[in-house]
Amino acid sequence: MSSVMRTLAVPAAALVLLTAAAREDGEMRGYTAESAKIERNWEAKFRAIPEPGRMREALRRLSARPHHVGSPYGKDNAEWLRDQFRSYGWDANIEEFQVLFPTPKERLLEMVAPVKFTAKLEEPPLPQDPTSGQKSEQLPSYNAYSADGDVTAPLVYANYGVPADYDELERRGISVKGAIVIVRYGGSWRGIKPKVAYEHGAVGCLIYSDPKDDGYSQGEVYPNGPFRPKDGVQRGSVMDMPVYPGDPLTPGVGATKDAVRLDRKDATTIMKIPVLPISYGDAQPLLAAMTGLVAPEGWRGSLPITYRLGPGPARVHLKLAFDWSLKPIYDVIAKIPGSQYPDEWVVRGNHHDGWVNGAEDPLSGLVPELEEARAMGELMKQGWKPKRTLVYAAWDGEEPALLGSTEWVETHAKELAQKAVLYFNSDGNGRGFFGVGGSHTLERFIGDVQKDVIDPETKLTVWKRSQAQAIASGDRKARGEARDRADLRIEALGSGSDFSPFLQHAGVPTLNGGFGGEDGGGIYHSIYDSFAWYTRFSDTSFVYGRALAQTVGSTVMRMADADLLPFEFGNLAETVQGYTAELKELHDNVASRIAETNRQIDDGIFAATNDPQNPLKAPKSEPLAPALNFAPLDNADGSLTRAASRYEKAYGAAIAAGADPMTFARFNEIVARADQALLDDKGLPKRPWYKHLLYAPGLYTGYGVKTMPGAREAIEQKSWAEADIEIGRIAAAVQRETELVNRATDVLEKKVRVQP
Amino acid sequence: MSSVMRTLAVPAAALVLLTAAAREDGEMRGYTAESAKIERNWEAKFRAIPEPGRMREALRRLSARPHHVGSPYGKDNAEWLRDQFRSYGWDANIEEFQVLFPTPKERLLEMVAPVKFTAKLEEPPLPQDPTSGQKSEQLPSYNAYSADGDVTAPLVYANYGVPADYDELERRGISVKGAIVIVRYGGSWRGIKPKVAYEHGAVGCLIYSDPKDDGYSQGEVYPNGPFRPKDGVQRGSVMDMPVYPGDPLTPGVGATKDAVRLDRKDATTIMKIPVLPISYGDAQPLLAAMTGLVAPEGWRGSLPITYRLGPGPARVHLKLAFDWSLKPIYDVIAKIPGSQYPDEWVVRGNHHDGWVNGAEDPLSGLVPELEEARAMGELMKQGWKPKRTLVYAAWDGEEPALLGSTEWVETHAKELAQKAVLYFNSDGNGRGFFGVGGSHTLERFIGDVQKDVIDPETKLTVWKRSQAQAIASGDRKARGEARDRADLRIEALGSGSDFSPFLQHAGVPTLNGGFGGEDGGGIYHSIYDSFAWYTRFSDTSFVYGRALAQTVGSTVMRMADADLLPFEFGNLAETVQGYTAELKELHDNVASRIAETNRQIDDGIFAATNDPQNPLKAPKSEPLAPALNFAPLDNADGSLTRAASRYEKAYGAAIAAGADPMTFARFNEIVARADQALLDDKGLPKRPWYKHLLYAPGLYTGYGVKTMPGAREAIEQKSWAEADIEIGRIAAAVQRETELVNRATDVLEKKVRVQP
Repeated sequence: MSSVMRTLAVPAAALVLLTAAAREDGEMRGYTAESAKIERNWEAKFRAIPEPGRMREALRRLSARPHHVGSPYGKDNAEWLRDQFRSYGWDANIEEFQVLFPTPKERLLEMVAPVKFTAKLEEPPLPQDPTSGQKSEQLPSYNAYSADGDVTAPLVYANYGVPADYDELERRGISVKGAIVIVRYGGSWRGIKPKVAYEHGAVGCLIYSDPKDDGYSQGEVYPNGPFRPKDGVQRGSVMDMPVYPGDPLTPGVGATKDAVRLDRKDATTIMKIPVLPISYGDAQPLLAAMTGLVAPEGWRGSLPITYRLGPGPARVHLKLAFDWSLKPIYDVIAKIPGSQYPDEWVVRGNHHDGWVNGAEDPLSGLVPELEEARAMGELMKQGWKPKRTLVYAAWDGEEPALLGSTEWVETHAKELAQKAVLYFNSDGNGRGFFGVGGSHTLERFIGDVQKDVIDPETKLTVWKRSQAQAIASGDRKARGEARDRADLRIEALGSGSDFSPFLQHAGVPTLNGGFGGEDGGGIYHSIYDSFAWYTRFSDTSFVYGRALAQTVGSTVMRMADADLLPFEFGNLAETVQGYTAELKELHDNVASRIAETNRQIDDGIFAATNDPQNPLKAPKSEPLAPALNFAPLDNADGSLTRAASRYEKAYGAAIAAGADPMTFARFNEIVARADQALLDDKGLPKRPWYKHLLYAPGLYTGYGVKTMPGAREAIEQKSWAEADIEIGRIAAAVQRETELVNRATDVLEKKVRVQP
Repeated sequence: MSSVMRTLAVPAAALVLLTAAAREDGEMRGYTAESAKIERNWEAKFRAIPEPGRMREALRRLSARPHHVGSPYGKDNAEWLRDQFRSYGWDANIEEFQVLFPTPKERLLEMVAPVKFTAKLEEPPLPQDPTSGQKSEQLPSYNAYSADGDVTAPLVYANYGVPADYDELERRGISVKGAIVIVRYGGSWRGIKPKVAYEHGAVGCLIYSDPKDDGYSQGEVYPNGPFRPKDGVQRGSVMDMPVYPGDPLTPGVGATKDAVRLDRKDATTIMKIPVLPISYGDAQPLLAAMTGLVAPEGWRGSLPITYRLGPGPARVHLKLAFDWSLKPIYDVIAKIPGSQYPDEWVVRGNHHDGWVNGAEDPLSGLVPELEEARAMGELMKQGWKPKRTLVYAAWDGEEPALLGSTEWVETHAKELAQKAVLYFNSDGNGRGFFGVGGSHTLERFIGDVQKDVIDPETKLTVWKRSQAQAIASGDRKARGEARDRADLRIEALGSGSDFSPFLQHAGVPTLNGGFGGEDGGGIYHSIYDSFAWYTRFSDTSFVYGRALAQTVGSTVMRMADADLLPFEFGNLAETVQGYTAELKELHDNVASRIAETNRQIDDGIFAATNDPQNPLKAPKSEPLAPALNFAPLDNADGSLTRAASRYEKAYGAAIAAGADPMTFARFNEIVARADQALLDDKGLPKRPWYKHLLYAPGLYTGYGVKTMPGAREAIEQKSWAEADIEIGRIAAAVQRETELVNRATDVLEKKVRVQP
């Protein structure tokens, strides 16, 4: 436990009461008493405006036809969105980029031995789902950025296809060299699966949806229930986005018409082997035809077969060809200029492209955003003017590769670095609990907002319901924290949506949130993600759509109107100390695992326990792990903790002393760069695009976050020299953050002269 | 960690070396140097005799026809076994009892709504399995001691049917009152399932074998592989044996011809509702016809359906009627009188009855026993005479209710209390690791024997392979122990085989063992447990049969010939301290769970996290758990530890001083009652037949052991006053053990006068 936690832990009950009492008096972080009163009034008006019925109709309109990148209806939606923003009084325009987005020309999957079988690769239309029959406009099921290919090879089953799965295969003497790997969705982001298969020598990869994960095992299948039917397929990108997202031909720069482009063969993020997603209807005959060892217990799905590893005798022929032309994407960008700080931007976005009709993903998050924009338009008519500039975006091309957001961020990188104080992202919405992640400097701020929004099911505040969830589902430690810590923890962000370029490339303070946890389903990235599905099985009355609009809109307004930007560094310091402790524990675990394995090898334990009828090879001995130098990081963590404490006193005093525009402006300019201080321009090892040293998607997990990724992945990969270097770089970043905090505090303490 | 452990832990490496060195010099626990030399010689000769080919032929003969209780071939087998023993030079006889053993007259299971379906209830013969077609002699699939009944009711799915599963149903608002419960095998002994269903108001119970547990999910099904085919059924008893095993009409006394018998209606161990086991072929249509809430994740098996809880709309009609007549059982009892201590008995047994052809269960454990007997007969021809009397038994009626062993123990209870120094049980055998459980006073002894037997697959000693397995599969603590503790831990015994009456009713020092862990299958209690199956899929070359004969035979001989009986109390003391620590931890966990749940109820956490579309009721508040008085047990544990240490010094000194027949005889008489000191004549709460205060099957788990059962189950059931009383009774038992150890030590230290 960090010193911050210790300080907070003792008088916790008192503190909670104090907070509650203070809040009744109208205290609001970053606001003088007078400003807070005004803000509360506008926010309350704002939250009364969003209408479920309008969201339903917007969802119906936007999901009426397939709207993937390059589709006619995608462009039509962008124009409609632009016009909607304009009709609300926003200055809205479309910004266009030209990106590499492959679409299928040929898809063939057939088993050639021991029996013939040709995969259907087709999702049937359903009479209960009117948009499911729009065959001429639908993208067929495929994985974007798969290689072209024509291969015939025996199948090997590799579970989720993560590196540990290949260790298991190797212990069983099974190589995937020259094979086509069949893996199931889940356990990692999908793009990891073909990448790891390729690294192990596979010539092709099939990814199927096991009914255990989102099919009949979870519940009734569509159209009778929300789960994945036999022929449902999860489309999706397999670009190597943990290296860099966005257009593969223009890393680091905007894919404008005239941008200098790489040759396609030099684009490292394009997959090297053909990859195809299939349904469990198509997978079952292939899996059933395999022999070889029975798959380990944890690898078995819910199909009524014996899951076996192969190789073969099932041999399959996989032939894929794509149209690799550039396609246009249409980002909708709408603005309201700030009345007081026009050069400070609060950015909010959700993508508008879908794989097919995309009702849940992404439109259920976009229609609340539209309602926020409409409500703010209404407030402006009543006299409200945001102090800072609002930038509302509807991104195109998120599904293939975060194309719209990445190219826009890369194009406007310099301006964002100077101006952006927040990016708030959503990507769909459902029923249940508000989940939120992002920059830990904003943990307290986003918690405060959640205390002002009412959960539609329980009529408790959204914050109270999240706290209850943390208590109900946590272990003893998590329960204690949820009860006694002043703030609920927010998640660190990995990837999988448009926040990635903002936070991890540009260092914009970022939040990402949405409701969920009570609705399940198996229509993700299929033709069945439709208006019909969403309005039967998810947030059917759009009350959570309204709650999302209320939560995000309040966040945006409160950030836009704040006297002092609401950044707080005590929680960041505590979080950074926690990550440091995790790194040490990870190192200890890796070190003792190596030592233990070596000892067991030396002692002949593997030979002694081997079953000759199910033989397992012993793993190989490895060099012991050296000790690592965590001292620089411990020192930096300590400095940040002390700086955060000093900052908080000065912050409270400055607010109590009342408005002081020049000081406040200078302070705001500094703290808005809180995440930029944590960037390192050299980026992460092997992936310079990712510059944030605290948060990144995992190189071998995909969406899943790796905190302090440089050091964490070096330890996981046993690159000890690199780990020491990365620990040093992270320590330097934390030290930069400390200096930023001290500079901001100096401003408030009037230790520096503020220029008029 | 106990003081014993601490003493051992530091010089562990040295100690292992010392043991090894000492063993080369021929040290053998309980033997003077001279006796050890002789014994080693005889044992080595013994271990050379057992022949795999003979075991194969005996298995073929014994499994040639169905041999359940009351069958012609069961009697034929008993007579053949008797004659075999006689041919080896043993004094062998059949001892007969008359027991209540119901067999089916009528079995009907049909679904009457929403669709009609009549269950097949039939295992088809297979051409690959010659004995599977002996229809006229096979017992049909059923659960023995089910009630007669004719009920029609909606189905409710209750997972494994253990008490915690009903808590989950209740939170979902589902009652089984008036319903027929369908549960799957696994998670508890089968008899628990209908008992708990009945206690919750169900009127019938179906138990099916899910393919996840021993069907296609585990591997290829029979006859292509070893696992359970679609129509395979697990027969088995559902008598309430955790209350008392054996003939339900004669609890506590032998079921001899003239025994006084209860009225059947007064026999508390007979199930109160009709119960039927079914195949997954018969279960699937029933489960697929159910609606209602989707079963929780952990409740779902491997059938290609959505598992739902009901109730209904599936309604089934279950009609069962049994022939409740008495049947004869035939225990085969073979003896070799002891040359020096004829009134000290070493008993060894394995049952001979099967549910059908019973090749694996029980015959694969019986044929090694026969080879032991034959080998000992050979040794006698060469001049060997066991010092103590050997009693080799082949029990009848184990499958229905441990009938043969229980009735024999009850009949000879007084004699056993005076004479038995060991009961060694086996019940089938397979390929892999030697698993052994029993009285912890024999932990060191059985470990020593395992160091003299060679594992057929690895050519390591059986002990070394078990140690490697403990290291390979254990957590850090278990690995450390496996490496550094002088002895490998043995399991505590619950129930499920013929050791139960010996250990838990009569207090005979007991061991139970067999090889396994490398062979799996799904033919348990079906017509496919045959010679054909066993010789294709289990210990096909009978080398593990030989290893079992070598291990058990050596154990028997070494116990029979010992100068000082090899009981050791340090490990028992340490184990008892471990159980005490577990009780405290259990109490802490139950107490904090109650406190936490109450707090969450008070704080409204259940209401706040409830999903209105999948509502869960909050649990009920419960009184907080009081502190318990563990002091008497802690004191007793300490005394036993000190007594064990003093005993061990005296034991070593006595052996070193050489043979002293009268002292040794007096000592042996005392220590042979080591388990009797742990009995309490009042027995356990609600089940006086079980008298051992350290080991019992769980009242709500069945086979699974509960150590210190009186206190443990009182804590689990939150009967706090009873828990305090039971802790006191266990403390008194441990104190009696301490006194026994001190008395034995006094004899060796010549503090008492030994009568000539």
